[in-house]
Amino acid sequence: QGIAEAARQYGDAAQRAAERMFCHDGRADASVLHAEQRALHGFAWTATLVEAVVRSAQWGLRLADEGRLGPLDAQVLAVGLAEYLAQLSSGIPMGQNEIFRPQELGLQDAAARVMADPAVRELQSRGGTPAARSALIDALRSGEQLCESALDEELDMIRDQFRRFTEQEITPHAHAWHLADELIPDALIGKLAQLGVFGICIPTEFGGMGLGKRAMCIVTEELSRGWIAAGSLGTRSEIAGDLIASAGTPDQKARWLPAIASGEVLPTAVFTEPDSGSDLASLRARATPLPNGGWRIDGNKTWITHAARSDLMTLLARSEPGVEGHGGLSMFLAAKPRGTDALPFPAEGMSGSEIAVLGYRGMKEYEIAFDGFEVAADGVLGGVRGQGFRQLMQTFEGARIQTAARAVGVAWRAFDLAWRYANDRRQFSRPLVEFPRVSDKLAMMVAETVMARHLTTFAATEKEQGHRCDIQAGMAKLLAARVAWANADAGLQIHGGNGYALEFEMSRVLCDARILNIFEGAAEIQAQVIGRGLLK
Amino acid sequence: QGIAEAARQYGDAAQRAAERMFCHDGRADASVLHAEQRALHGFAWTATLVEAVVRSAQWGLRLADEGRLGPLDAQVLAVGLAEYLAQLSSGIPMGQNEIFRPQELGLQDAAARVMADPAVRELQSRGGTPAARSALIDALRSGEQLCESALDEELDMIRDQFRRFTEQEITPHAHAWHLADELIPDALIGKLAQLGVFGICIPTEFGGMGLGKRAMCIVTEELSRGWIAAGSLGTRSEIAGDLIASAGTPDQKARWLPAIASGEVLPTAVFTEPDSGSDLASLRARATPLPNGGWRIDGNKTWITHAARSDLMTLLARSEPGVEGHGGLSMFLAAKPRGTDALPFPAEGMSGSEIAVLGYRGMKEYEIAFDGFEVAADGVLGGVRGQGFRQLMQTFEGARIQTAARAVGVAWRAFDLAWRYANDRRQFSRPLVEFPRVSDKLAMMVAETVMARHLTTFAATEKEQGHRCDIQAGMAKLLAARVAWANADAGLQIHGGNGYALEFEMSRVLCDARILNIFEGAAEIQAQVIGRGLLK
Ligand SMILES: Cc1cc2nc3c(=O)[nH]c(=O)nc-3n(C[C@H](O)[C@H](O)[C@H](O)COP(=O)(O)OP(=O)(O)OC[C@H]3O[C@@H](n4cnc5c(N)ncnc54)[C@H](O)[C@@H]3O)c2cc1C
Ligand SMILES: Cc1cc2nc3c(=O)[nH]c(=O)nc-3n(C[C@H](O)[C@H](O)[C@H](O)COP(=O)(O)OP(=O)(O)OC[C@H]3O[C@@H](n4cnc5c(N)ncnc54)[C@H](O)[C@@H]3O)c2cc1C
Ligand SMILES: CC(C)(COP(=O)(O)OP(=O)(O)OC[C@H]1O[C@@H](n2cnc3c(N)ncnc32)[C@H](O)[C@@H]1OP(=O)(O)O)[C@@H](O)C(=O)NCCC(=O)NCCS
Ligand SMILES: CC(C)(COP(=O)(O)OP(=O)(O)OC[C@H]1O[C@@H](n2cnc3c(N)ncnc32)[C@H](O)[C@@H]1OP(=O)(O)O)[C@@H](O)C(=O)NCCC(=O)NCCS
Repeated sequence: QGIAEAARQYGDAAQRAAERMFCHDGRADASVLHAEQRALHGFAWTATLVEAVVRSAQWGLRLADEGRLGPLDAQVLAVGLAEYLAQLSSGIPMGQNEIFRPQELGLQDAAARVMADPAVRELQSRGGTPAARSALIDALRSGEQLCESALDEELDMIRDQFRRFTEQEITPHAHAWHLADELIPDALIGKLAQLGVFGICIPTEFGGMGLGKRAMCIVTEELSRGWIAAGSLGTRSEIAGDLIASAGTPDQKARWLPAIASGEVLPTAVFTEPDSGSDLASLRARATPLPNGGWRIDGNKTWITHAARSDLMTLLARSEPGVEGHGGLSMFLAAKPRGTDALPFPAEGMSGSEIAVLGYRGMKEYEIAFDGFEVAADGVLGGVRGQGFRQLMQTFEGARIQTAARAVGVAWRAFDLAWRYANDRRQFSRPLVEFPRVSDKLAMMVAETVMARHLTTFAATEKEQGHRCDIQAGMAKLLAARVAWANADAGLQIHGGNGYALEFEMSRVLCDARILNIFEGAAEIQAQVIGRGLLK
Repeated sequence: QGIAEAARQYGDAAQRAAERMFCHDGRADASVLHAEQRALHGFAWTATLVEAVVRSAQWGLRLADEGRLGPLDAQVLAVGLAEYLAQLSSGIPMGQNEIFRPQELGLQDAAARVMADPAVRELQSRGGTPAARSALIDALRSGEQLCESALDEELDMIRDQFRRFTEQEITPHAHAWHLADELIPDALIGKLAQLGVFGICIPTEFGGMGLGKRAMCIVTEELSRGWIAAGSLGTRSEIAGDLIASAGTPDQKARWLPAIASGEVLPTAVFTEPDSGSDLASLRARATPLPNGGWRIDGNKTWITHAARSDLMTLLARSEPGVEGHGGLSMFLAAKPRGTDALPFPAEGMSGSEIAVLGYRGMKEYEIAFDGFEVAADGVLGGVRGQGFRQLMQTFEGARIQTAARAVGVAWRAFDLAWRYANDRRQFSRPLVEFPRVSDKLAMMVAETVMARHLTTFAATEKEQGHRCDIQAGMAKLLAARVAWANADAGLQIHGGNGYALEFEMSRVLCDARILNIFEGAAEIQAQVIGRGLLK
């Protein structure tokens, strides 16, 4: 209780400090936002950790109310909350060489106050010590279990179901699939389709499961815990499904949603260009009206995931040639034939080649050139031109929440592997887990992953309630990606030399985790979205 | 001046605090060392950053004395010193999820004192701000150069020579060699041999260059700046050369040193076993005397770099079967025939297979099984049994300093790539380098790399003077490995999606950098060596 309150107060102090720094007459000054980007992003990170503390603390209270807060849950929360409050008041790693400290926003007094708060002091002595972390690890070693319930029977059943599915169908094969660097087998896609993975949030009237974003997060997290690619297969269906369900015409909904939900149509998301990544609004691929009412597409796209084995492109292009920036962009629903390894893009006016990557394998990424590729007359999403960017930004909220859930799954996988290794491997006549430097890492892995999960659930709940939530989605994505990367790095370190061997899964998880800070809006872009959003 | 003094005082306070925590009657208590490992390692990290601050500040003073401290040098030092003092007083990242804070050693008052010191305050306002970092980047963009002189003409010539060589012979090919995952071409080894790379520290009477460890560091750093493998080719010659030069019999010196120096004999270092990595003293490979005076070797080794294409093993094995721990180990000089790809180990009693790895390619690592492999009668180093571990530990000092230099080279490469990319790539109508979150990363990359270099030079100087310097070598290795990894991570982030593409060199540098925290004594082991050593 007191913890959430203390964190909130610190958050409020940060908000006031940021407003003093960035705003004149109640509006943020663009030139200060640019010049003081470090402080802006530090503010965004501060708000993110505050939110993670508040949501995790509230979760603990709720579990306690329901009589379901076990001793392990309490220990994990104490360790996590203590660490995040310590980061808030002494320094937040925004990157490995970028530690943001309270002084930078003039918050040193507020930081001292928060650490002097009686509830926070009590928490620090209970959770902020080596003894607390090692007790947590002892509890895990003795077989205690975290409460993973969402306090909702349906959601709990979904988690169970996908955990079992993942353990049986994905985890045992993931590493071999990664090493082979081939497409995820069609058979697995078929099984996922049967489970409804491609239509989780699509309304039941269109053949979907009609579930909310929390369900999507649970499914995504569990699948990603086996392999990031398994949890990412649904991303493009989620994007296309959300775009069409929220902005499509009745015909577009009827035509595409059932096919997406059933997995019969696999979509691909075609936005990024060689010269437009973070600055998506500047993109230049052109959509030109044809006499037949259709459109011709010209220009280059890149980094398009699962582009070959897909049937539908959600394609962002400039349809209003005179209009620069996002106002000139429209979203197209462009049917395409599925490609094969030999002939990835068997369509007129479309060619492309694969981009080999470190991790995140199984769907393959492509550079694509469009040269007179044709989209049908009913291909503009919702039939409205010039709205593509805004439509996409709304959908990105869900996609970023989904990405946060992917990160939570990867973070768990890193923990699972490190946990097993640390218990099995012995050096100096003890299992590694008995060395404080090893158990410390493991304890933080659990605590941070749990907190990232709570923040993700919070963002998903906001989205379910129909609020604009780019701030919350950004926070979830920002934090969860950091946690996944930190866990993978720590997990590899625990593996010693073996972590560096391709034969050990840990080496893959490191590579997989590294993408999460980059795609769906890089970490710096999320911080920008959060910081600017909070100053509105 | 005042800076080094303030840092020293903080270091002294840490030393006293650690002694209070760990020592009884002036001796460290083993059970406390184990139970409070986190504090011990925090102390080691504290001492490491203090030493980096002191040595870098002294370097600045010396350059200033000689009238060679340019404005850019001063800026870089100010940024780096300010950040390390801030880390000392607010939190040191020992790993991504392990931030060590002064309170943990009861140092909060000492930390407050150091930050209140007038010289430190002045430094913080001069170097600890976004403005300072962006001025540093502006100076670099305007073409200002760092002073890289070692204030020694011969050493400066060596740096020049190897920089040119690397730019011509290594950098342009490194990435293709990495992707091909083959052995470094023999031709390159030949050129390096001609330049004397394999005999830098071998006395001239044995055909070496008779230079000191600083020269070795410079050569290593420059070669590693092209490719870690190029800077690592010499590691095994350094280990074998140092073992033999310092502990070998006159015959062993005469037989092996000239051949190692000329590159005619490539050595390999055969220490680690499947069950003995960090705890090397527990190793179990047996050396059994034969009637002919020679030895037979039985047992398994693993992670042996460059094992196939090498002619001489420095092999650590248990020759005293009754003696557990390090006293039972001897170091063997074991000749072996060179292998080929098809037949990697064409020797009786020796077989092995390759371990595929993320990075650090070009020499290949192997698991090796010995089953009655024979070593000649004069194969015991120095002719003394039971001294192998101590001999090796002494040699590891040099090897760890050499590894620190490799890390500094890799850190520079990450910077070079990120620098070029950030200047070339534009988003939001500006080059990336103009965004503070990008320039902040770059500024810290330069500053930390420079400081890691100074700490490495310091350790090398200690070794040249014949002091036992496992503490200083450990510090250099610990810090430089962290810097290389942080730079690689930040450099990849600056590359956005392209950093994740195998085609971009940045993806390789990330993989290469990850080994540095693991081999030659993992980060946790260095912290252990430093912490224990400082309490003696
Ligand atoms: C494996 C993979 C799969 C992908 N899949 C898809 C896909 O299916 N469809 C699709 O459309 N795209 C996809 N992408 C593209 C992805 O969304 C972009 O890589 C991402 O948006 C970043 O853009 P960029 O790579 O151009 O980096 P850039 O925008 O060039 O950014 C480079 C660096 O500069 C920083 N930066 C940029 N602008 C600013 C600023 N204003 N302030 C501070 N820092 C800034 C960034 O944070 C980053 O660190 C994928 C990428 C990868 C690597
Ligand atoms: C690419 C590569 C090349 C190599 N080349 C060679 C070579 O040429 N010759 C050779 O002999 N060896 C070589 N090695 C082996 C290398 O030296 C070992 O990997 C290293 O010493 C770590 O040992 P390990 O892998 O067994 O890890 P482990 O000792 O099992 O350690 C695993 C983890 O536990 C931690 N840990 C272990 N003990 C403690 C403790 N007491 N307290 C706290 N934490 C602890 C470690 O820090 C690490 O994080 C190489 C390794 C690699 C990956
Ligand atoms: C950087 C970035 C956040 C926005 O950049 P921008 O060009 O400054 O755009 P703005 O924030 O001004 O937003 C443009 C418009 O969209 C609207 N918008 C933005 N986010 C929105 C949301 N979540 N819901 C509704 N509308 C939204 C804005 O209100 C604005 O509308 P207006 O012009 O009518 O006021 C965006 O380009 C981005 O997310 N980049 C990363 C790309 C990415 O994630 N790619 C992944 C591909 S898989
Ligand atoms: C962990 C580690 C530091 C030492 O572990 P340990 O078993 O506790 O050994 P100690 O520190 O007690 O040292 C054993 C002996 O060597 C001596 N020694 C250690 N370092 C020394 C040095 N730098 N110079 C001289 N003697 C040294 C000690 O004084 C001690 O001698 P003593 O028994 O006569 O007192 C060592 O095993 C290690 O470095 N592991 C990492 C392995 C590695 O780097 N592998 C890379 C392979 S490429």
